[in-house]
Formats: sequence, structure tokens, C-alpha cells
Amino acid sequence: MRGVLVTFEGIEGSGKSTQLLRLSERLRRLGVSHIVTKEPGGTALGAEIRRLLLTRHASGEAWAPEAELLLFYADRAQHLKAVIRPALEAGQVVLVDRFEDSTRAYQGASGVGEDALNHLRDLVLQRLRPHLTVLLDLEPEQGLSRAGSRNEALPGFQETRFDEAALDFHRRVRQRFLQIAKDEPQRVSVVPAKEDPALVEAGVWRAVSPLLRSSGIEVD
Amino acid sequence: MRGVLVTFEGIEGSGKSTQLLRLSERLRRLGVSHIVTKEPGGTALGAEIRRLLLTRHASGEAWAPEAELLLFYADRAQHLKAVIRPALEAGQVVLVDRFEDSTRAYQGASGVGEDALNHLRDLVLQRLRPHLTVLLDLEPEQGLSRAGSRNEALPGFQETRFDEAALDFHRRVRQRFLQIAKDEPQRVSVVPAKEDPALVEAGVWRAVSPLLRSSGIEVD
Repeated sequence: MRGVLVTFEGIEGSGKSTQLLRLSERLRRLGVSHIVTKEPGGTALGAEIRRLLLTRHASGEAWAPEAELLLFYADRAQHLKAVIRPALEAGQVVLVDRFEDSTRAYQGASGVGEDALNHLRDLVLQRLRPHLTVLLDLEPEQGLSRAGSRNEALPGFQETRFDEAALDFHRRVRQRFLQIAKDEPQRVSVVPAKEDPALVEAGVWRAVSPLLRSSGIEVD
Repeated sequence: MRGVLVTFEGIEGSGKSTQLLRLSERLRRLGVSHIVTKEPGGTALGAEIRRLLLTRHASGEAWAPEAELLLFYADRAQHLKAVIRPALEAGQVVLVDRFEDSTRAYQGASGVGEDALNHLRDLVLQRLRPHLTVLLDLEPEQGLSRAGSRNEALPGFQETRFDEAALDFHRRVRQRFLQIAKDEPQRVSVVPAKEDPALVEAGVWRAVSPLLRSSGIEVD
């Protein structure tokens, strides 16, 4: 595959979407062909899965943990086939808002075992791995506070289940993200996300630009 | 678990739903507490997955094979947690229209490997297996012809993708069902489904009644 896959990870309110937009805007100015996508919901069918995952069903029924896990991977399989792999094969830079590490951090923190995660990763990703993962790292207190104020600002916002999860859960999620970064320092670049967005953007660019240069993309 | 799990399997048009209803009616007359359920779609959330699996999406997008596989298992995980396991724990007889063997036959015939199927089965079913599986066996030519005429008879019926699959595909599905029966003769009882429904019903009862008796259920 000729393209470059960059994933953005982090807890809620860590600024992934903001930083993805800023990076996309910078690439646009530089004339670098790229796409911005997300999980769950990066395809039309995936958006249906996203809706099932993130909104309460009228029946009041909640997902079994294994069902939730399998839905996230179903979304990923679809996303890879319909969007990510074709874009990489076309030589594009692909920026993804949440990917495999989010499943490992969130579902892992919910009690899903490493074995199940590894089997599903191998089934769905096969040998594909992101060339770079930007982990926007933030204290859960600050992230949830940001996410909360954002949610209140949206009229008709349907509260997601993730926002209801306890701070304790998000602390475990953050620790899992940081552990992944520790285990795979070549792939994962930790960018502190507490500062002003412009400073965070500079940190993201310090992580991304060397990869683009080494992939033969003109970015200066 | 104190209950009894009986699954009905077979190609389309093999008469699973008809025979399930007849068995349910007989159990009702005998005063045997039982539930009738189905896959996909045996729960409120599963019905949403069923809709995603069996109807064409407005976008025209089709499921990647791995996504489809994972959606079937997500539905099964939900069904087990919300319906099947609680009913078995309550000592009920549980009759299911399609279960694990359908995934192994259909997705296997679509090219999904045994390894992936085994890992997903272990993740989702854990150690649970049906006490009995009734395989209604029929030539695909006859099954598809029955299924086709049934579909035409339903006003507003939304054609399912399965009905479009080639006869050749259904021959492979049938062979896979028969192979499962050959591999697990203790669990799977093959009932020829070509005859009159009343004769098939007698065959189903010959398979089911000894299990119920041996489970201490009065059926005579």
C-alpha cells in the first residue's frame, strides 16, 4: 500500500476532532491529498452501527459487552474495506478519528480480555497497522469537562453512554492508551493535549511531518 | 443451566418456522413451558442488526464479509445474554430458529475460515452448545422455490439478499449443514423436509421428544 495511515486517539474531550481539522486544513494548504474519517461511523452502513452503539434504544435494552465489542469491529471491517484500504491503495494520506487503540482502551477497560481483542484485530486488520498514531493525552477530569460543555452547547444533543461512564473508568482508559504508547513507541506519539489548541497543533505537526517527509510528501 | 436448548437449522424454504410453530403448539398443548425465538433479531437491539443485515441500505453500500460475520455474532451475543441464557437458567425449553450452525454454513460457504468461526464461537457461546439441533434437510431447488413463492405472497416484502444468492451457493450451504451433522451426530438430528408438513412434524417430534423425556419433562 502506498498511502499513509495516521490515527488520532485519546479520551473524550482530548481535542481529536479539533486537531484533525487543523491538520487537514494544513495539508490542504500544502496541497497534500488526504481524507479525514472516523470510527465508529466512517461509512454509510457504519453510521447505522454508530447510531446503535451511541444512542439509547427505545426498548431500553443495553448491549451485552461482547455484542458491543463485535459491533465496533464490524464497523471497522466495513470502514477498512470501503474507505481506508481503497484510499491507502490510491496513495492518499488517511486521517482517522479513533481506530483500533480506542477499542483496546475502552473495551479493555470494560473487561474484554487481550485474547479476544487480539483475535478480532487479526481477523479485521489482518496485517494493516497505522503508520503513526497521535495520542492526545489529557487528564480525564479536563477531558470530560470539555466534552460535557460541548454537549450542552448542542441543541437536541443526545447524550452518549460514554459520557455517563464514571471518571474512574476514563482514568483506566487513559492508562490503557498510555500503556499502548509505551509498548509501541515507534508507532504511537504522545502529544500533551492540555495546552492551547495552537500549541497542541504544533505538537501534532512535530509528530506527523517527519512521517510525511519520509513518505516522499513535500510539506515544507 | 436447567433448561433445554433446541435449535432449528436448514436452508431457506426448509420449513423451520412452520415446524417451530407446530412444535411450539404441541408443547403448549402438553403444558410444557417454552419460548420460541430466532436469529438474527431475537432481541429489540438484534432486530436492528437483522434489519441492517437483511435489507439493502439506501446508500447502496454492501457489507464487507467480515463485517457481516461480526454482525451475526453481535446479534448472537445479545440474544444469548438477553434471552437464551436467562430462559435456560429459568429451566425453560428454548426453541431457536437459526443459531450457530447457520453462521458456520452460510458464512463458511461465503469463504470465512474455520479459525475465525471457532474464535468467534468461543468468544460468544463460551461453553454453551444446543442440547439438540434439528436440521431440516431439503434440496436447494425445492427450498428456494418455496421461499420464492412465500416472498411473492407477502405484500411489501423487501427482498433479502440471501434469496438472490445462486443455487450453487445454497448447495454448498446444504453440504456444510450435512457435514456438521456428520461431525456431531449426537447433537444434530437430520430430518428430511421434503414431505408433507405433518410428516416432517412427526420426524421433528421423534428427534425432540426423547430429549425432553430425558430432561424430566412429561410429554406423553
